[in-house]
Amino acid sequence: MKKTDVAIVGASAAGLMAAVTLRKRNPEKSVTVIRHVVKTPVPCGIPYIYGTLKRVEKNIIPDENFIKMGVDIKYMEVNAVDRENKSISFVDGTSLSYDKLILSSGSKPFVPPLPGVDQENVFVIEKDPLKLQKLHTALESAKNVVVVGGGFIGVEMAEQIALMAGKEAMKESRITVSLIEMLPHCLMMACEEEFCIQAENELTKLGVTVKTNSGVKEIAGQGKVTSVRLADGTELETDLVLVSIGAVPNIDLANQCGLSADPRKGILVDEYMQTQDPDILAAGDCASKTSFITGKTSGIRLASVACSEGMIAASNLYDETKRRNLGALGAFATKVGSQSIAAAGLTSKAAADEGIEVVIGEATTPNRHPASLPDCITEMKAKLLFQKDNGKIVGGHILGGESSADMVNAIAVAIQTGATAEELATMQYATHPLLTASPLFYHIMLAAENGAIQLRKAAKQKKLSREAA
Amino acid sequence: MKKTDVAIVGASAAGLMAAVTLRKRNPEKSVTVIRHVVKTPVPCGIPYIYGTLKRVEKNIIPDENFIKMGVDIKYMEVNAVDRENKSISFVDGTSLSYDKLILSSGSKPFVPPLPGVDQENVFVIEKDPLKLQKLHTALESAKNVVVVGGGFIGVEMAEQIALMAGKEAMKESRITVSLIEMLPHCLMMACEEEFCIQAENELTKLGVTVKTNSGVKEIAGQGKVTSVRLADGTELETDLVLVSIGAVPNIDLANQCGLSADPRKGILVDEYMQTQDPDILAAGDCASKTSFITGKTSGIRLASVACSEGMIAASNLYDETKRRNLGALGAFATKVGSQSIAAAGLTSKAAADEGIEVVIGEATTPNRHPASLPDCITEMKAKLLFQKDNGKIVGGHILGGESSADMVNAIAVAIQTGATAEELATMQYATHPLLTASPLFYHIMLAAENGAIQLRKAAKQKKLSREAA
Repeated sequence: MKKTDVAIVGASAAGLMAAVTLRKRNPEKSVTVIRHVVKTPVPCGIPYIYGTLKRVEKNIIPDENFIKMGVDIKYMEVNAVDRENKSISFVDGTSLSYDKLILSSGSKPFVPPLPGVDQENVFVIEKDPLKLQKLHTALESAKNVVVVGGGFIGVEMAEQIALMAGKEAMKESRITVSLIEMLPHCLMMACEEEFCIQAENELTKLGVTVKTNSGVKEIAGQGKVTSVRLADGTELETDLVLVSIGAVPNIDLANQCGLSADPRKGILVDEYMQTQDPDILAAGDCASKTSFITGKTSGIRLASVACSEGMIAASNLYDETKRRNLGALGAFATKVGSQSIAAAGLTSKAAADEGIEVVIGEATTPNRHPASLPDCITEMKAKLLFQKDNGKIVGGHILGGESSADMVNAIAVAIQTGATAEELATMQYATHPLLTASPLFYHIMLAAENGAIQLRKAAKQKKLSREAA
Repeated sequence: MKKTDVAIVGASAAGLMAAVTLRKRNPEKSVTVIRHVVKTPVPCGIPYIYGTLKRVEKNIIPDENFIKMGVDIKYMEVNAVDRENKSISFVDGTSLSYDKLILSSGSKPFVPPLPGVDQENVFVIEKDPLKLQKLHTALESAKNVVVVGGGFIGVEMAEQIALMAGKEAMKESRITVSLIEMLPHCLMMACEEEFCIQAENELTKLGVTVKTNSGVKEIAGQGKVTSVRLADGTELETDLVLVSIGAVPNIDLANQCGLSADPRKGILVDEYMQTQDPDILAAGDCASKTSFITGKTSGIRLASVACSEGMIAASNLYDETKRRNLGALGAFATKVGSQSIAAAGLTSKAAADEGIEVVIGEATTPNRHPASLPDCITEMKAKLLFQKDNGKIVGGHILGGESSADMVNAIAVAIQTGATAEELATMQYATHPLLTASPLFYHIMLAAENGAIQLRKAAKQKKLSREAA
């Protein structure tokens, strides 16, 4: 039987990050990453295969970088994990013994129990190049596409399918793309309402029909889909349906080998990414999560979370000083049409749902200074949420230029270091005419100061009421 | 005599920020900002007047925004401040009495005592639209321009003068632009050496002659400059010299009214921006500074520091809860040719000079993922400096795409909140194919992890030596 020090099942964000981390930290240890797909697609890049990149092969994480670092990548289906003998058996009859095992088996698209969902031409997004190619081929001849679910994947896929169809075809309605979302707006789980509306407007400009507050009742057809029936009775003719309403942790292997796992939460891990087996850790979409902000169970499944968890898991394998996973923050970014949207932490709706009282500081200023400079987006906006009781930042949202993601990362750092509105208002930020807002109006500073002023008023008010009582 | 609650002398970054802050925080207070220039240019935008914007008027901070907020802007030269009677007298004979005064009189270009520096056609950059226009007019007919001093202003001016001349003229040497820097590289006070070299390469590509390690001995000419003689004997023919070797605090008014001020350090203020007069505060380039990192006197004079100080000063005027100025960080950004460069905190040279032992974590990865996406800069680089004894980040440097400034602001927040390599390595960052590096290779995370690994090795080594002893 072959041997490896560390076996990693799953070669997407968490698995690859774990492998790289181990090779850097413990170069004396061998590591084998096992994947059931021939190549690993860039997970977040998948939508861009269809409109921008045009080819599945352009969206592959190259194995070379990992092989160069001494990572052994194995293309094979796992049959079972034998925890007692610390070995993995494969469908081809071979086995691999391990010292430590990391499960990073990811998630599976959630397929709702809808009538007709099993038909041909109903697709989900799977991180498998062959299946992604199949969707590409189907889209090439599709006339009326319905995307069910307006989260990040749904929104990005709708945009890219419209791009793939081409301006002309969309304008003349030779090809139609509809996006169906159950909630009042697309992207609502991650973004502020007004930013969601901006994203919807961008989709509309591209010719996508956005239908929110809309549930799907049935996917009609006789083996091959012909229409989608909405809860309100609307019938959308279609020859291709893409279902993108979320993902559930892939816990098959954990179940097989008797590790505690919950179909919704994932493989149960502690803050060190440890399962109940001392030699098995889990990381990424397949692992259970808590929220960085509330400490409660979290359903946030993101590559950024997976990477952080993969790094923590691998660091903890052979080091006495353990790294702790502080929980999923939720740091998102996307670009729809001309608008980039980024978010970290709570939305104001999520804060309200959690009973966290917040004050909101906003700033809308140009992202260049003076605004007469070329490529200036005059209405770049920051919206920051501060906890009312202690002034700490718990959420931040940016809309505008392409640096929105990096700007939200300043906010992500602030949330994760426990910074307050006071601190963020008086900090110094790098600015430059060709790159950012003016130092007088830098979005984060200005929004934080606007938040700090409200917090100060609230504190005064509280003091006055206390004195009056 | 007219009255105002708060008088602010100087209407650039610190003064305007102070005025806005006061109006937001204490709307019941009146504020008068006094400036000796007819309009306020965007200070950092000045170089871009020459190549990109083409006109001085395109680089003006509009007064309207401030007037709308109830700020009174007065165009007038101050004659004297009468501290005893709390009033300001103007050159036109009028006066204004104040309750509180903020001095934000900025800095003056440092003019070295060089032979020939007083001649016609030797320019400095002053924040005065009329003088900026004079330089514009002179540049229109200049053939051989010599820029003395390769800091941010010198580098940006050299680039913009080359742009103003046009590709053809530069290529055919009908117009020449030389940049003279005394230090081994341009931008060395703020940026890492290899990034400075990149900036120099970009200038060279634009046709600028960059001469480093070069001191100026004499500016020759008979009333009108004809050549610049360098210390090594080189003689550069020229008809326009721009001197940009730094700025000194403008302390004339402080001297006049007997406030303690140092010609190099500026008007002496405490951490609340208070001068020795309880009713007078100072902020911005004219005020004394300490370094955020070392606590020592700092010579960093930047709009971002000025804005922070202006906000702190104004907040402290009427509020019992005082804001503290934690010191100048130094958060910079620029764009030279196709490369954007940003920095926060210490360079490795500055750390060495201060005797601060650091480990350096680096990461060079594409700023889009996959790298096959359009507009990808495949070699965007982050370089982070962590204090060896406690792992805290004390500096960060980014080279590459236009989001470098916002990315460095995540680092600026990290420095100002005292984050460690460990924390920054395991944090979550927003990423997106069209906007950032991959979550597997996000620059800050990767560079922090590379730093954390070195810190861990160093700690182990230290433990081993201790045990051996």
